[in-house]
Amino acid sequence: MQSQVSSLNEECGIFGVWGTPDAAFLTYCGLFSLQHRGQEGAGITINDNGQLRTKRGLGLVNDVFKVTDLQELQGQAAIGHVRYSTAGSNTLENIQPLSFNFSDTQFALAHNGNLTNALTIRKNLEDQGAIYHSSSDSENLMHLIRLSKEETLDDQVKDALRQIKGGFAYLLLTKDRLYAALDPNGFRPLVVGQLPNGGYVVCSETCALDAVGAKFHCDVQPGQLLKIDENGLSVSEYTTNTQLAICSMEFIYFARPDSDIYGINVHSARKNMGALLAEEQPVEADLVTGVPNSSLSAAMGYAQASGLPYEMGLVKNQYSARTFIQPTQELREQGVNMKLSAVKGVVAGKRVVLVDDSIVRGTTSRRIVKLLKDAGAAEVHLRIASPPLRYPCFYGIDIQHASELIAANQSIAEMQVTFGADSLGFLSVPSLIKAVGLKTGEPNGSLCVAYFDGKYPTPLYDYQESYEQEQAALKHCLKV
Amino acid sequence: MQSQVSSLNEECGIFGVWGTPDAAFLTYCGLFSLQHRGQEGAGITINDNGQLRTKRGLGLVNDVFKVTDLQELQGQAAIGHVRYSTAGSNTLENIQPLSFNFSDTQFALAHNGNLTNALTIRKNLEDQGAIYHSSSDSENLMHLIRLSKEETLDDQVKDALRQIKGGFAYLLLTKDRLYAALDPNGFRPLVVGQLPNGGYVVCSETCALDAVGAKFHCDVQPGQLLKIDENGLSVSEYTTNTQLAICSMEFIYFARPDSDIYGINVHSARKNMGALLAEEQPVEADLVTGVPNSSLSAAMGYAQASGLPYEMGLVKNQYSARTFIQPTQELREQGVNMKLSAVKGVVAGKRVVLVDDSIVRGTTSRRIVKLLKDAGAAEVHLRIASPPLRYPCFYGIDIQHASELIAANQSIAEMQVTFGADSLGFLSVPSLIKAVGLKTGEPNGSLCVAYFDGKYPTPLYDYQESYEQEQAALKHCLKV
Amino acid sequence: MQSQVSSLNEECGIFGVWGTPDAAFLTYCGLFSLQHRGQEGAGITINDNGQLRTKRGLGLVNDVFKVTDLQELQGQAAIGHVRYSTAGSNTLENIQPLSFNFSDTQFALAHNGNLTNALTIRKNLEDQGAIYHSSSDSENLMHLIRLSKEETLDDQVKDALRQIKGGFAYLLLTKDRLYAALDPNGFRPLVVGQLPNGGYVVCSETCALDAVGAKFHCDVQPGQLLKIDENGLSVSEYTTNTQLAICSMEFIYFARPDSDIYGINVHSARKNMGALLAEEQPVEADLVTGVPNSSLSAAMGYAQASGLPYEMGLVKNQYSARTFIQPTQELREQGVNMKLSAVKGVVAGKRVVLVDDSIVRGTTSRRIVKLLKDAGAAEVHLRIASPPLRYPCFYGIDIQHASELIAANQSIAEMQVTFGADSLGFLSVPSLIKAVGLKTGEPNGSLCVAYFDGKYPTPLYDYQESYEQEQAALKHCLKV
Amino acid sequence: MQSQVSSLNEECGIFGVWGTPDAAFLTYCGLFSLQHRGQEGAGITINDNGQLRTKRGLGLVNDVFKVTDLQELQGQAAIGHVRYSTAGSNTLENIQPLSFNFSDTQFALAHNGNLTNALTIRKNLEDQGAIYHSSSDSENLMHLIRLSKEETLDDQVKDALRQIKGGFAYLLLTKDRLYAALDPNGFRPLVVGQLPNGGYVVCSETCALDAVGAKFHCDVQPGQLLKIDENGLSVSEYTTNTQLAICSMEFIYFARPDSDIYGINVHSARKNMGALLAEEQPVEADLVTGVPNSSLSAAMGYAQASGLPYEMGLVKNQYSARTFIQPTQELREQGVNMKLSAVKGVVAGKRVVLVDDSIVRGTTSRRIVKLLKDAGAAEVHLRIASPPLRYPCFYGIDIQHASELIAANQSIAEMQVTFGADSLGFLSVPSLIKAVGLKTGEPNGSLCVAYFDGKYPTPLYDYQESYEQEQAALKHCLKV
Repeated sequence: MQSQVSSLNEECGIFGVWGTPDAAFLTYCGLFSLQHRGQEGAGITINDNGQLRTKRGLGLVNDVFKVTDLQELQGQAAIGHVRYSTAGSNTLENIQPLSFNFSDTQFALAHNGNLTNALTIRKNLEDQGAIYHSSSDSENLMHLIRLSKEETLDDQVKDALRQIKGGFAYLLLTKDRLYAALDPNGFRPLVVGQLPNGGYVVCSETCALDAVGAKFHCDVQPGQLLKIDENGLSVSEYTTNTQLAICSMEFIYFARPDSDIYGINVHSARKNMGALLAEEQPVEADLVTGVPNSSLSAAMGYAQASGLPYEMGLVKNQYSARTFIQPTQELREQGVNMKLSAVKGVVAGKRVVLVDDSIVRGTTSRRIVKLLKDAGAAEVHLRIASPPLRYPCFYGIDIQHASELIAANQSIAEMQVTFGADSLGFLSVPSLIKAVGLKTGEPNGSLCVAYFDGKYPTPLYDYQESYEQEQAALKHCLKV
Repeated sequence: MQSQVSSLNEECGIFGVWGTPDAAFLTYCGLFSLQHRGQEGAGITINDNGQLRTKRGLGLVNDVFKVTDLQELQGQAAIGHVRYSTAGSNTLENIQPLSFNFSDTQFALAHNGNLTNALTIRKNLEDQGAIYHSSSDSENLMHLIRLSKEETLDDQVKDALRQIKGGFAYLLLTKDRLYAALDPNGFRPLVVGQLPNGGYVVCSETCALDAVGAKFHCDVQPGQLLKIDENGLSVSEYTTNTQLAICSMEFIYFARPDSDIYGINVHSARKNMGALLAEEQPVEADLVTGVPNSSLSAAMGYAQASGLPYEMGLVKNQYSARTFIQPTQELREQGVNMKLSAVKGVVAGKRVVLVDDSIVRGTTSRRIVKLLKDAGAAEVHLRIASPPLRYPCFYGIDIQHASELIAANQSIAEMQVTFGADSLGFLSVPSLIKAVGLKTGEPNGSLCVAYFDGKYPTPLYDYQESYEQEQAALKHCLKV
Repeated sequence: MQSQVSSLNEECGIFGVWGTPDAAFLTYCGLFSLQHRGQEGAGITINDNGQLRTKRGLGLVNDVFKVTDLQELQGQAAIGHVRYSTAGSNTLENIQPLSFNFSDTQFALAHNGNLTNALTIRKNLEDQGAIYHSSSDSENLMHLIRLSKEETLDDQVKDALRQIKGGFAYLLLTKDRLYAALDPNGFRPLVVGQLPNGGYVVCSETCALDAVGAKFHCDVQPGQLLKIDENGLSVSEYTTNTQLAICSMEFIYFARPDSDIYGINVHSARKNMGALLAEEQPVEADLVTGVPNSSLSAAMGYAQASGLPYEMGLVKNQYSARTFIQPTQELREQGVNMKLSAVKGVVAGKRVVLVDDSIVRGTTSRRIVKLLKDAGAAEVHLRIASPPLRYPCFYGIDIQHASELIAANQSIAEMQVTFGADSLGFLSVPSLIKAVGLKTGEPNGSLCVAYFDGKYPTPLYDYQESYEQEQAALKHCLKV
Repeated sequence: MQSQVSSLNEECGIFGVWGTPDAAFLTYCGLFSLQHRGQEGAGITINDNGQLRTKRGLGLVNDVFKVTDLQELQGQAAIGHVRYSTAGSNTLENIQPLSFNFSDTQFALAHNGNLTNALTIRKNLEDQGAIYHSSSDSENLMHLIRLSKEETLDDQVKDALRQIKGGFAYLLLTKDRLYAALDPNGFRPLVVGQLPNGGYVVCSETCALDAVGAKFHCDVQPGQLLKIDENGLSVSEYTTNTQLAICSMEFIYFARPDSDIYGINVHSARKNMGALLAEEQPVEADLVTGVPNSSLSAAMGYAQASGLPYEMGLVKNQYSARTFIQPTQELREQGVNMKLSAVKGVVAGKRVVLVDDSIVRGTTSRRIVKLLKDAGAAEVHLRIASPPLRYPCFYGIDIQHASELIAANQSIAEMQVTFGADSLGFLSVPSLIKAVGLKTGEPNGSLCVAYFDGKYPTPLYDYQESYEQEQAALKHCLKV
């Protein structure tokens, strides 16, 4: 029987705050600074003297929340969520925080990550009569909590957390407390900060702490459950069977350059990637330029390490092209181009090292190489500051199928031809690990690098079967 | 008697195209690439087989135009406009193109710049029975054309152009032609390009030519009137009494870095400004960083000339804060900050050269210096890649009163204290002129630098009296 | 502990159709013709080859559905709902049809009526781990169906129906069938019709059959469960313990005059009420006028029976004042009046019999009497074509508290003074029963008249306690 | 040469008030009560201590004005306008009040009616350099005022009024006064009332006086110019060459039944029309019913005069079908019907006299006759309470072409067949005049009946030529 519920995969941002009369506004600011983690929708739930109220909507934080919304969301605690856009799930009911109203209590829940056993749990619970609000995997936690036979809410939450698998950073707001939980591998980042007045903030990245004037307190550790209530912050473990394997794509692409993850500044890590890339993949050239904005750090690192001048060879339209009406294919071929433009005065006649952070489908790379050549670049040497993406992610990044990844389908030599570049080079996995430089002692320098090497740190549960089928199908064409 | 019409001052962007079935879509693309020149409103008028139709609205290009709008705007020629936000004039009736329907013909008009004798003309014409649509100075041209006693439309337009004073780049669309005109000083940029199919584009900056796949053809010269019709492009002069004095703020701040103005690439000019600034205002330091995004070119130039490393010390939220609900003063003082954040890992413990393009009110400078110090910067040396702004502009930039300019009210030493910087230095006017490097032989290297030295290249007409009054009032406190 | 879920009470309209490619459009038409039953919100769920899709929104049918919505809602079956506005519940999540998505199937549910044991059921189910979507009592049915241990869906639905108490007409759409069910007392009307092509329609009133060109087939009987699927219509009983007690307010006020309920035309029943009122409460006067639009039928009946001329003494603004900005109390006292106006030329100097259908709070009556007197009426004799409303309703009309009812707080003599009328008379319960004239042989002529005499045909369950408390409190002041 | 400006024809409503702090709100109320005169758009201009501000929009009064709009429109005087929907002109720029801002003063203008020499004036003025805002004929007055050589504004306005021809009721608001003017034939109604505080109201119908609590003061007379300012109300004549010929369609159809025009109550006039129709066009039947809502008064009159019972044979959906998505022709033929429905219980088996107020195209008549027959009516005798509409109107009703009028194309016998009625009868012109019963002594009982007899009380100016052409073309088929 055809399932009605397609599983969702999301890269999102979460923000929670406890203990300040400005809870809603700070959450709004925090979500705005996490906007890069999700642009599909946003929501805030506040706790107003024990009553929870939620405002959610499709679109950017600034579109969803008006002055009057924030005025109505007065309260002492809040959680918020920005959601990544994935095709087909673009409906209001999937925008978080998910809110749950019971006869005698209320909950709100925000989730960053992706569960790997969500469908199995849902099917089991539905067979017992459960009814789900949304098509989101995030909702499972609420059902498991309510069905838990444990006595205290603390224990019910831990009981529920032990049953879900995959990648998750969860915030759970109730009438009298705020929980935060991280999966046993710490796939997704989650940090705690403190406000000048003593209130606590828990959020995806430290850039959101800076945005609201909070001081960094600690990184949440894998397997931890934090509780913030009128007695302050308390930390416990729901499992000790943990192994840090933080998503390396957070360092490579997702996180903001001014954020720190487990003590490592993201911009600096990217600069290191660029520098190591220059060592591994040197080339004779006149200048180095990055694809704005995500690759500028790596380009600076490449320039510095190679001794080549760092230049502004590409300019990005600073106005969001999110809702831009797309040109027809015909116009695109005539040169109509909205997002990026080459600076002719800089690149004309020059041998350009073009640094990008990563390659997914490869369509952008091809376009940018052409853009530079059309602007007169003599040579374009494409350098990618991460290893080739060859395997899907099931922990919260929206790459579910290897078939979408050009590096799973073409060799590096083939890709160079596809992109029209004069040379092409990637960073190695060991250099990636070295560039980040986490000192925590887990395998792969405590990073998850499964999209590069296919070695997943956990079982894949609901995804195992389809993953194997796809890999088998790809075997024929893979010539890496 | 109190006047009902407050004069308007606008920095805007204009785009016109003739001879392509994609006229509306290309204008849409062109306006999007000129969005940095005006965010208050946008409009497009198309010529659909001799019938003009207009769609205008408040907000960004992407907000104003929906797919259905562009589908309805089918035609072979079009003009468009993006408008700069100035307080009080935020009404639909002032959004351009202004459209005029007569019993037997139609006109549409788009204007970048500011007329200096608009009120005088309007008063005169109203006394003769004229009725104005808008409160915009732009409308005068239409009245003068209709009242002209000349026989041909060409001559009527020239007659009208000779009567208006100040800064203007005008596009005028009729049922059978597109006019473009530039003021006798060429205060505002205006360029012509050609599409692959032979059609013509006239617009504010070359970046809009790139966006629509048009090849640069020529810069419009001061005093020229261009006509594009079924016979192609023809150029004539409505006056020969011209003297190029292009707005230097276009090079310093307004124009996009990938645009060329009279053959000079804007990014390169800014890099030169930064390099000459390093020579004029050197300082011992550990790194150079720019205020994103407008000052990055100058910062690169400063770094390169000084030999100091170029770094990413500040990160700008890439999502538009246009409609962001502002934090209260109290929250701002607690560190709530939406737009910019410092990268602690980069600046902590370092002596930072902070490069900015210009200083208007000075409030931003103070905030950024504090941001860097709060992030642990040991010293912050503020370097401004333009001379101090001390005088108002009447040709199209929204600085009408010297009283708003901090450099008109404080000495450099005072400003340094105000900003909390460890040192402060500006570029000199001669270095600015040298950095741009126009070879056309007019005074001040063919630039208008009146905001720096108060020497206006034209009479001020309607503004003369109030300007003199303000200068007299400022004399008391000026200690430059 | 304070409950988070306030119970809701609604008078609503429902419409379902099976077996036509125009399912969504006919539902749209049907809902528009049932708009008088609910103006808060509207929704449609269609069955598109086994897939259910729902569009819901706040506001009137015409506001909620755009052309594109109906185009997207293509399918062969549909159910729809219009919702009555009750304070506090004005949120999207309570707008019906409620939709439920399971891993392997889907349901949509539309409900007219009010359950009396909803809170008890919900509390019990939540204690077992159930999670509710909405704060609506309507949702209980879905949970009970899913938790039923019966084997077939037919039996699960019947099992669930036997557990809920109160007033309900339910439509339940699945991927392969449409159920319709009526409570054991038939409190709410529900009729079946047939389309020219053989498809079936089930809806609240016959006026919706007329609107979509369907022929009346039958009234649904108390305790029946109807199933419509590819085999056509089949009727069964989930209980035989039934006693028809249809809401008399449907005849008096709610239903449209062109609808028939159990074979009785509503307009004719109202005319009879007016005629019997003239017999019971005669008065010497010059003319009879009704309060538009709901009381015109009764006024015609009164005029005809009394021999007095029927006149248009009051005119109602035919444009909806739903969203009209209300005048201040001060302006209202100066005579500002939006909704109704008196026709001076008709009433000036005349003795007017003013017929209204019913009196709830009494504020309108007072206002209308004053309106007529201000317009010069010599005398105003208020005649109400129903008995005094003294008790709350728990089966689906939004009168939950006797304290809101003026007739529960004042005697008829007191009300006459309150209204400023020259005389006041109500219809008796026996005459009401006679006017409707149902021949089905149940008590009170098969009508529910509990709001008049306090004798409820069922236990009150969750409401019993608060009802008794209120009655005890009212005993002190009741002087009927 | 093809003209760009199509002339507009509108039936509208206007409302002005002077001397109350509630000016905007009372105008809002007044416009709502005049909503039946125009549903395309609405606008209000207030005078706030000499400054005029305008808010206009497309749609109904309630859609256009929000609470915040009215809060911003604080002032002591105001004028407002509701606009009738005519195809093609549905743009914001044509919504009134038209506002005009001069360097030293402001005007706002609201117009009900249609000028017959508008195109000639416009062409003349444009040839002299004038620029028009709108495509509305209403704007001419402003240009003529500004071009007048008279010395005082009073005289300039009179000078302008003497130059325009056709039907007009004008309101003109300036910083220090409110003018009201009526054309020399008084084609459109215009009344003056007084507020409890002494302030004045000038508006289209007395129902708007009632709505705002104002007392009727006088009807404005043809050729009058009223001025209301700080000295109160003063009345003068701009011409004495007048002849009252008020539009008889105001009595027949347009005006609200509770309004009085020149002392005649509209409902009573309609009742008289029905009564005289019963005398002129008697028929043996069982009952009389009217088409709701406009024909109910005439139906009452017919019933009373004929002795037949007055019944509710048709019910109109009280919710606006303005924006209703129209059914396809196929569905319409299957009986889908949104607006009207027949009450079967009333009409089945009966001989019905169906009274309608007038017939334009005849499509509605055909539909309603069919509706009644489908509901079982034995016979349907159509009686029209006005003479056959055979000629266009050029004074403000949107019937510009006789070709649209069924009675200009078919004989009464032919129409009876077209409509499927068992008999058809119209009221005669003399009876119409008698029914209204104005005592003012002008021809045709001071009514304009030109749409019935083609005898226009004024020259037709711009329309003369096309009118004669159409009449000549119609001569062939006219068989009256």
